[in-house]
Amino acid sequence: MTAPYELIYYTGVPGRGEHIRLILEEAGVPYKDTQFLSFSEAKKSVTTSLISSHDNPSYFAPPLFKHGDLVISQTPNILLYLGPKLGLVGKQENDLYRVNALALTALDLLSNEVHDTHHPIGTMLAWEEQRVESKRRSREWVENRLPTVFAYWERVLGNEKRGLGPWLLGDSFTYADLVLFQCLDGTHYAFPKAMKQARESGKYDKVFKLYEDVKARPNVAGYLASERRQKYQDWGIYRHYDDNDVVAE
Amino acid sequence: MTAPYELIYYTGVPGRGEHIRLILEEAGVPYKDTQFLSFSEAKKSVTTSLISSHDNPSYFAPPLFKHGDLVISQTPNILLYLGPKLGLVGKQENDLYRVNALALTALDLLSNEVHDTHHPIGTMLAWEEQRVESKRRSREWVENRLPTVFAYWERVLGNEKRGLGPWLLGDSFTYADLVLFQCLDGTHYAFPKAMKQARESGKYDKVFKLYEDVKARPNVAGYLASERRQKYQDWGIYRHYDDNDVVAE
Repeated sequence: MTAPYELIYYTGVPGRGEHIRLILEEAGVPYKDTQFLSFSEAKKSVTTSLISSHDNPSYFAPPLFKHGDLVISQTPNILLYLGPKLGLVGKQENDLYRVNALALTALDLLSNEVHDTHHPIGTMLAWEEQRVESKRRSREWVENRLPTVFAYWERVLGNEKRGLGPWLLGDSFTYADLVLFQCLDGTHYAFPKAMKQARESGKYDKVFKLYEDVKARPNVAGYLASERRQKYQDWGIYRHYDDNDVVAE
Repeated sequence: MTAPYELIYYTGVPGRGEHIRLILEEAGVPYKDTQFLSFSEAKKSVTTSLISSHDNPSYFAPPLFKHGDLVISQTPNILLYLGPKLGLVGKQENDLYRVNALALTALDLLSNEVHDTHHPIGTMLAWEEQRVESKRRSREWVENRLPTVFAYWERVLGNEKRGLGPWLLGDSFTYADLVLFQCLDGTHYAFPKAMKQARESGKYDKVFKLYEDVKARPNVAGYLASERRQKYQDWGIYRHYDDNDVVAE
């Protein structure tokens, strides 16, 4: 009997764990998920799994992923572990490293940086304690960073070397597409006005098309419509604050 | 004839490229490095390499690594590509994923977060434009984040499951140790007072021992003493500002 795949994460928000759910849902494989535990049980599972066990070192933060005796942390690392097993790392030699680079870049630019708009001074302080700086960082992000970041993804999708889409690696759908989708989806929750402005500008049509194309994939669409897809809340990676929801001038 | 390893990065600071140099120097393999070009030639090489070529998508930022027709970006991704080839990913099944998790965590906590102390509002603004916020974030980092982060690494190094050091995976020296070393070295440059305080506290002896042990490895020591090791400058990842160099109260 093969060991089950087990996602260990807090319950109540999609969070970083969502990237792991999406790759598993797209592939249609069963997995265990601590989201179905109570909040305190899920938290206890996270805490316990961060401690070293078998040959695994201690880890710093969830998501964690368990497969038999192996426990690993770090979102892009878990995707890297699953990607080849689920056939989502491209078709050409060394595509794994191209996919990993794209996934890491999406997480840097549209998960970490968007997270930091609500926590510019420190992750250990509440948003209320850094509200002024958060507003300033959000404006800076919308006005200067969003155009740079979206122009980059538009450039990747207009890359004639890999076949002009629809995916980041041309005709190969990979987990990097899922990561970018989830990052765009979360950013939409955090910054609806700026995202509407970006969409209507017509400058990033390939990026928004990829977003819609991933969303329409049967297994992804089925998952998004299910109860397994949790709602964004204002204590997760992506948060909506009216103060921060500005448009570029 | 095998294709050479080529690091493509700006010249003049160690930067994120340093992690790539350290793994190659530790392994004692030859490599090309754009640091030996003039500043403008190195920048041109970076810019050119960010554009899609062969089967490689466009990338967002250096470091870039070229091996034959393959071009990849993202520091942890380049290390992941080289680690197995250079025998620096541990001895047990799936250690690669444990090493990658530890390397990603070191880069998150002691490269990205330390970088953000001088750029809390945005990477596209100069430090002078966010000097007040930078000071606040630095104090927050020294007082609250440093103890959390150092206590984590001390815990990994006191992990009885993998043999109580001297390395992060017990008796297996891996590239995660090199990454943590470089992160600690850069943090020392940025926050000498806080690092002295941390060292003298006696709370993180295993962490500082790992730092010294990596530094003393023959190939690393030889490299650090060579002209190939560039000096930190106040336009890199790690910057020293007297304003920010505080101690915990």
